[in-house]
Amino acid sequence: MGSAAGADGLTQQQQQFLRDLFPGRQALFPQEQTWIYGSDAGRFFAQPWAVVRPSTLEQVQEVLQWAQTERVPLFPRARATNVVGGCVPLGGGVVLSTLFLDRILELDERDFTAVVQPGVSTSRLQVRAEELGLFYPPDPASVGISSIGGNAATNAGGMRAVKYGVTGDYVLGCQAVLPGGRTIRSGGRVHKDAVGLDLTSLLVGSEGTLALMTELTLKLLPRPQASASLLAGFAEQEAGLEAAGAVFRSGLLPAAVEFMDRKAVECLRSAGACEIPRGTDCLLLFKLDGSRSCLDSEIEALERHLREHGPNTLSTGVTPSEEEELWQPRRALNPASFHLGPDKLSLDVTVPRGSVGQAVDRAQDAGRRNGIHAVTFGHLGDGNIHVNFIHDARGPGQAEAAGKAAWELVFQVLHLRGTISGEHGVGLAKLPYVELQLDREKVDIMRGIKQVFDPRGILNPGKGY
Amino acid sequence: MGSAAGADGLTQQQQQFLRDLFPGRQALFPQEQTWIYGSDAGRFFAQPWAVVRPSTLEQVQEVLQWAQTERVPLFPRARATNVVGGCVPLGGGVVLSTLFLDRILELDERDFTAVVQPGVSTSRLQVRAEELGLFYPPDPASVGISSIGGNAATNAGGMRAVKYGVTGDYVLGCQAVLPGGRTIRSGGRVHKDAVGLDLTSLLVGSEGTLALMTELTLKLLPRPQASASLLAGFAEQEAGLEAAGAVFRSGLLPAAVEFMDRKAVECLRSAGACEIPRGTDCLLLFKLDGSRSCLDSEIEALERHLREHGPNTLSTGVTPSEEEELWQPRRALNPASFHLGPDKLSLDVTVPRGSVGQAVDRAQDAGRRNGIHAVTFGHLGDGNIHVNFIHDARGPGQAEAAGKAAWELVFQVLHLRGTISGEHGVGLAKLPYVELQLDREKVDIMRGIKQVFDPRGILNPGKGY
Repeated sequence: MGSAAGADGLTQQQQQFLRDLFPGRQALFPQEQTWIYGSDAGRFFAQPWAVVRPSTLEQVQEVLQWAQTERVPLFPRARATNVVGGCVPLGGGVVLSTLFLDRILELDERDFTAVVQPGVSTSRLQVRAEELGLFYPPDPASVGISSIGGNAATNAGGMRAVKYGVTGDYVLGCQAVLPGGRTIRSGGRVHKDAVGLDLTSLLVGSEGTLALMTELTLKLLPRPQASASLLAGFAEQEAGLEAAGAVFRSGLLPAAVEFMDRKAVECLRSAGACEIPRGTDCLLLFKLDGSRSCLDSEIEALERHLREHGPNTLSTGVTPSEEEELWQPRRALNPASFHLGPDKLSLDVTVPRGSVGQAVDRAQDAGRRNGIHAVTFGHLGDGNIHVNFIHDARGPGQAEAAGKAAWELVFQVLHLRGTISGEHGVGLAKLPYVELQLDREKVDIMRGIKQVFDPRGILNPGKGY
Repeated sequence: MGSAAGADGLTQQQQQFLRDLFPGRQALFPQEQTWIYGSDAGRFFAQPWAVVRPSTLEQVQEVLQWAQTERVPLFPRARATNVVGGCVPLGGGVVLSTLFLDRILELDERDFTAVVQPGVSTSRLQVRAEELGLFYPPDPASVGISSIGGNAATNAGGMRAVKYGVTGDYVLGCQAVLPGGRTIRSGGRVHKDAVGLDLTSLLVGSEGTLALMTELTLKLLPRPQASASLLAGFAEQEAGLEAAGAVFRSGLLPAAVEFMDRKAVECLRSAGACEIPRGTDCLLLFKLDGSRSCLDSEIEALERHLREHGPNTLSTGVTPSEEEELWQPRRALNPASFHLGPDKLSLDVTVPRGSVGQAVDRAQDAGRRNGIHAVTFGHLGDGNIHVNFIHDARGPGQAEAAGKAAWELVFQVLHLRGTISGEHGVGLAKLPYVELQLDREKVDIMRGIKQVFDPRGILNPGKGY
């Protein structure tokens, strides 16, 4: 994968057009400046022909008009924290970065809405909202560096999805520019809208294949008054999963319910990331939030449900620093998993909530059968589990073994009526599996819709479907 | 409006095809049997050519294949509780009723999902879910008689939308048959899915113009342990709206926040529907739900916020019968509003939450200016207000005055950055206003998408956009 074409993919005239439209640092051509725009947090790479970084709507409109006329592929790119190659310019083309479209245009305490450009970082919006007593719930793991535009393009989830839903649940409307430069507005700042087809939901999660969102109107909530976290360890994975199931059935709705399996515990221990009692087979991590007056009784109820399933450790944190300490293992996990090996093939499958235990078993089986490590963790509440197949690609047959384990897991997940991606999207990484999950008729319809938005196929070609 | 064509719109051969495909009572042709299928809860009417009531997927597939080949318009119809003419066969065609597709196929306590056919009544699903300790939150006003399929086709909202969202937030996936008989599956029983375009959200709210949903997979929540209701009256409308705003800003998230204006109070009083202290200018009705241990402190907090705004009455109900009594005025309101006049022109506009007060003022102004009654009430939490322009169409110029008031309100709502429909959809009733709200580019895209699903335009033609 990868190409060394560089700016040679564009004619002199085309380069000049981009230079005129994007003055100074807004356009990049030299390979040493553009190559960093050829990758993302996964390990895919392709050399861009050029990178443009618009700062105005008009620039976006003009470049999309030009690209359609000239049939130049455009690859929208936000902060590139995605891990599936979603914004890699495979096949060659111009990278369209939203880096300079980074203004928070409005934060409205009475409407409970924010209007932002796509390049605004998720955490910056969260901090600004909190200063006003407001709350933007979606919190993908990359929240500190990812952007709202990228979150919307991939319909990013995160830890709090079990209670609060995913990014798409907070996008009330958007302005978006289509190939050819046409600009549409969909939805708006109302919390309910029953007029016309829901194009906003169609654009959310479309992985930049339909249009470039230039402005997003987001729903905000009141900031919860208080929160608390609980970490519980169990000697048997089954007991841990049973405990989580009992919590849901009781009517408690935690903001987050995270799970880490035996291998994950092993990683954390060998990385020295935290103290975990011997004989712990799985960890559960809960976050509760809500009104202060409720929280104590909810903590009590949650502790009671967990105790009934015999944890070998149970800690509760109610201050920010206590909470932070309990979340430490979860945050340390991804880096810690490299203690088992230098390479990782990662899947973010989702199964129906009742099948999480089976999915975890099958991920572990797939690792074992193929002689590699399967580290399993994730968002238990919505059935979204991350599986890192850790291996050493330099070892004989290891990369193939990881690939084989991934295929086996994909089949098992589909058998459990799950999906091959809960929040990362398809990008390039999951393309080989898509046709296993989606029937021909659905793919035909999706391609028909793509054709309506992007008749010449210039926007993020080769991704998603 | 209306046509007397009856079965004459179909050839003998076409009628025979339908008779063969739909044995016995599944097909209706005589006008005295079909006319009831020509209307809905609004006052639109058109005589169907015939009514077919499939009970199997295969019948749906065959009739959609046939209709496309023969270019016969098909009008999907669920329980027809919509008030905008959404399923009226204007222009002539065959009504496709989902009445016999009424099975709850699955209720899963571990996955927190239900799989239902479109004709299942909303309340039946709710009752069955509650028996298992589960909860299906969407509760449009017509919940007792409306169906899940109709709710999904219109993305129906309801009282609890402020906390729990609308129907679309609970549709995880569907099976749907397209014109031509093609069948797609979109989404599934997972709570998160990032693979492919979100066709489920596109079908939800499409008012039956794209496909016929034959199976819906719904997300369920755990049943809340307890609930309570509060009714507060205020001498000044402004104080009431301020009180509601203060509640939201405090971080409390009630399941419902309903509002009734001065005219609404007047209707209720003249209908003798309930006791309301003299000098009450507006009523607020709250429902809280959640864990039993939280509820008391939330009631206390809510009462405190309301008292700060000087209500002239405040009642709290915690048992089912006490709660029911407090909700009585809200339920009595629609029938009671006819005490002001025999005819009603009703809008369900939605504005940004912070503009609700202005929208209510403008609705009242529009009524006053045109010499008719404007009864304003609705779902304050999400800015969705219902305005009934009550008049007597037999009086000179009254019908015109109501129409003029509606147009004035539509302009005002759009000026406030609202939408002309929060939950009823467009159907026939709102068609005249659509192009004021949606820009040309968006309409073009919607029509392009319609073309992908329904190239010959046979499904619910003339509706929505």
